[in-house]
Amino acid sequence: MKKIYVLVSTVLVLLACKEQQKNPSLSVNELTSEEKKDSTAIKHIFNSALTQGKSYEWLRDLTQNIGGRLSGSPEAEKAVLWGEKLMKEIGLDSVWLQPVMVPHWVRGEKENAYYTISGTQKNVPICALGFSIATPDNGLAAEVIEVKSLDEAKKMGVKLKDKIVFFNGAFDETLINTFKAYGGCVGQRFSGARVCSEFGAKGVIVRSMTNGINDYPHTGSMGYGDIPKEQYIPAAAISSRAAENLSKDLKNNPNLKFYFKQSCKTLPDAPSYNVIGEIKGSEHPEKIIVVGGHLDSWDLGEGAHDDGTGVVQSLEVAYLFKSNNIKPKNTLRIVFFMNEENGTRGAKEYAKVAKQNNEIHVGGLESDAGGHTPRGFSIDANSKNTTLIKSWKKLLAPYGLHDLVKGGSGADISPLKNEEVTLVGYRPDSQRYFDYHHTSTDTFDKVNKRELELGSASMASLVYLMDKYLYTNDEIIP
Amino acid sequence: MKKIYVLVSTVLVLLACKEQQKNPSLSVNELTSEEKKDSTAIKHIFNSALTQGKSYEWLRDLTQNIGGRLSGSPEAEKAVLWGEKLMKEIGLDSVWLQPVMVPHWVRGEKENAYYTISGTQKNVPICALGFSIATPDNGLAAEVIEVKSLDEAKKMGVKLKDKIVFFNGAFDETLINTFKAYGGCVGQRFSGARVCSEFGAKGVIVRSMTNGINDYPHTGSMGYGDIPKEQYIPAAAISSRAAENLSKDLKNNPNLKFYFKQSCKTLPDAPSYNVIGEIKGSEHPEKIIVVGGHLDSWDLGEGAHDDGTGVVQSLEVAYLFKSNNIKPKNTLRIVFFMNEENGTRGAKEYAKVAKQNNEIHVGGLESDAGGHTPRGFSIDANSKNTTLIKSWKKLLAPYGLHDLVKGGSGADISPLKNEEVTLVGYRPDSQRYFDYHHTSTDTFDKVNKRELELGSASMASLVYLMDKYLYTNDEIIP
Repeated sequence: MKKIYVLVSTVLVLLACKEQQKNPSLSVNELTSEEKKDSTAIKHIFNSALTQGKSYEWLRDLTQNIGGRLSGSPEAEKAVLWGEKLMKEIGLDSVWLQPVMVPHWVRGEKENAYYTISGTQKNVPICALGFSIATPDNGLAAEVIEVKSLDEAKKMGVKLKDKIVFFNGAFDETLINTFKAYGGCVGQRFSGARVCSEFGAKGVIVRSMTNGINDYPHTGSMGYGDIPKEQYIPAAAISSRAAENLSKDLKNNPNLKFYFKQSCKTLPDAPSYNVIGEIKGSEHPEKIIVVGGHLDSWDLGEGAHDDGTGVVQSLEVAYLFKSNNIKPKNTLRIVFFMNEENGTRGAKEYAKVAKQNNEIHVGGLESDAGGHTPRGFSIDANSKNTTLIKSWKKLLAPYGLHDLVKGGSGADISPLKNEEVTLVGYRPDSQRYFDYHHTSTDTFDKVNKRELELGSASMASLVYLMDKYLYTNDEIIP
Repeated sequence: MKKIYVLVSTVLVLLACKEQQKNPSLSVNELTSEEKKDSTAIKHIFNSALTQGKSYEWLRDLTQNIGGRLSGSPEAEKAVLWGEKLMKEIGLDSVWLQPVMVPHWVRGEKENAYYTISGTQKNVPICALGFSIATPDNGLAAEVIEVKSLDEAKKMGVKLKDKIVFFNGAFDETLINTFKAYGGCVGQRFSGARVCSEFGAKGVIVRSMTNGINDYPHTGSMGYGDIPKEQYIPAAAISSRAAENLSKDLKNNPNLKFYFKQSCKTLPDAPSYNVIGEIKGSEHPEKIIVVGGHLDSWDLGEGAHDDGTGVVQSLEVAYLFKSNNIKPKNTLRIVFFMNEENGTRGAKEYAKVAKQNNEIHVGGLESDAGGHTPRGFSIDANSKNTTLIKSWKKLLAPYGLHDLVKGGSGADISPLKNEEVTLVGYRPDSQRYFDYHHTSTDTFDKVNKRELELGSASMASLVYLMDKYLYTNDEIIP
């Protein structure tokens, strides 16, 4: 009898297991009673973001009344005061400015570039890269040598001498996540000048970091590493269409001379601030979940998708907690980081001060991938909390948040990384992001109100769950 | 010994089952060897769409060189010839025009509307609704009565007499899928005039079918049902911002008079065509999978998202099959349907002819929800094929196609519905769609090249799988 019982139970278990294999979504869609409460709380967060959200009007103010705000600029300082005022207005428990010295690079006069073919001058949309030196006052002209990567440039060696090196590595358009395509190319922009100066090149022009073919030069950071100052050579980006055309023209006219002129320079470091505000935790005020984006932006556009959206979404997380009367158990801290674009000095200072003060950061969430329609989150945490966050998929998927994957969080919160802290990056859809990134077209009108608000609500929902459930030192908080 | 073996096996099975519960995604991510082949085929489809896609330039041509193309208009006829030429150019096995008589409504002169408050004239962005009659030559002026729904209007009854009824039901912004919000409001637009004419109203103005507050009036179809012609009253849409303002102004000035003038009219039916082309099936040429969008559009914009994108994506499905040397087992038929917007005469004619000719349609895929970033598919099929399509999630999710849900397919293919045919609607992200839908802003520049191409590839991948695996009459094809 016992034997039969055991056999029957085995068969039943096998059948149940088979049933689950046939319906892998079964367990995913069933909610426990606690999960039903969470589901309701999340629905309320989304409802209020979509009907009473403030982020869109905040973004309009930041982008259209202040505009581009490169570290050290008067606009960046205006943005600091704007952020401080806003945090106080929404009634955070405490708001303060955290001083930090930031690099101060200025673009100078509008750059220009051209080359001449068969007597016709072709003008080239161009912009200096951040931290580049200027060309001589009357510009720089030289023959051009085209390469597709840093490795190819290195192999050229002395052939680069006295040339303008043209880095024409294009985005791999087959990569669905455009950030991966960016990652595959951006080395040319960042290190091209440093690598080529060793071989005596006169300057560097880089194909813009963008998908497809367009007419806008995309700026961004570069660095000379530790080469001597007298070996610095100027570096600039040209539009992807200009890069395509130049490449074609070089095939027929390998000796054409390219001319460009820029008057940018790096001034002494300037004083600035991270803007910080928090809602005190009701049970563990000493434990901090930080949510942020970066307040600085490149100067060419209005810094809308990069990263005005991240700033206003981060603040809206706090606003949604307050307007839904959610009292976080841990302290919810909102940070508008300064100087992400060219130095991440704000991020470093924030992490340094946190360490000095023995602050306990249990979680972090960064929004610095644009304000497009939500797709998910990228998780940088220990395996226990990674598994935990992935288990929230059933609560988040109804809002388009399907991608809960292991990966990096963001440049501003990653200095906080250790084994205990759970760092997460918000991941909206990436298809349009590099159309606007670091260009004059990164303006308010490119941001869709609902997509922005859905992002704020996605972030607030994740923070709600992190605050309630994250493991710290193998203990559940609280 | 045997007993222990059984016991151990029970425990092992239980553990395995538990493991699967912990990792519900485990079985989903594992691919069989056949699925690996499918995964590779799909990757190739996406790669070629993103690097050699034609849809974006086709769309530029259709929207910018032809433009808005309402049924019966000269532009619609140009679009028919454009479609026929293009299908021949990409080398479909056969291409033909299927005649169909279509309604022919014309807007006439640009509409205008205003009301006066405290001596100040407020102009109102307005447009006639499709099939509406004109106002009298010198316009129509009357007091306004505001309602939020058809039910509210019906309850008003005779109070509507001699009034302009103002339907001000707004989208429910808390609905994540904006098509649901549209579904909740569109009855006002379609049936408002019919309902109110019974009670002696003079005219109807309807808040535009759109998310949020903007300045564009959104047109769309309306109908008078079977009320006598002499009871027809004019109907128009006003922008959502104008609706908000009018509602406020009515609170302080309940007797204000609203004036509008429009000169639209319905002409006799006009001859037109569905444009059809196909790749003959290699094994079951008699079995058809139809893929389509609608060629006609409203007249106010360029018919880009509605439904130029669906047209070019449908053709790109065939192009991607050809360029990837995929020979469909069943016949792949591309249809550019005529007159979806105001009559669906093309859809009805297509289904009628298919029945007359005893054609066997095994599958259908329609793209008529805009050209935004892919989210998934909506499935209208028997349970066996619904389950089958949902099982492809592991192959499609890497491309952002997570939403494989039961639901409607589309207005143009749904007349083909029966128990055997599997009908599917392509479902891109819906957040921005009703910003452009039926307005002057539905223009080429609102379409993102990569998002469009990802949509073509998503559709081609689904058709690849449908062609290979769909069950018909409980048999696998082939």
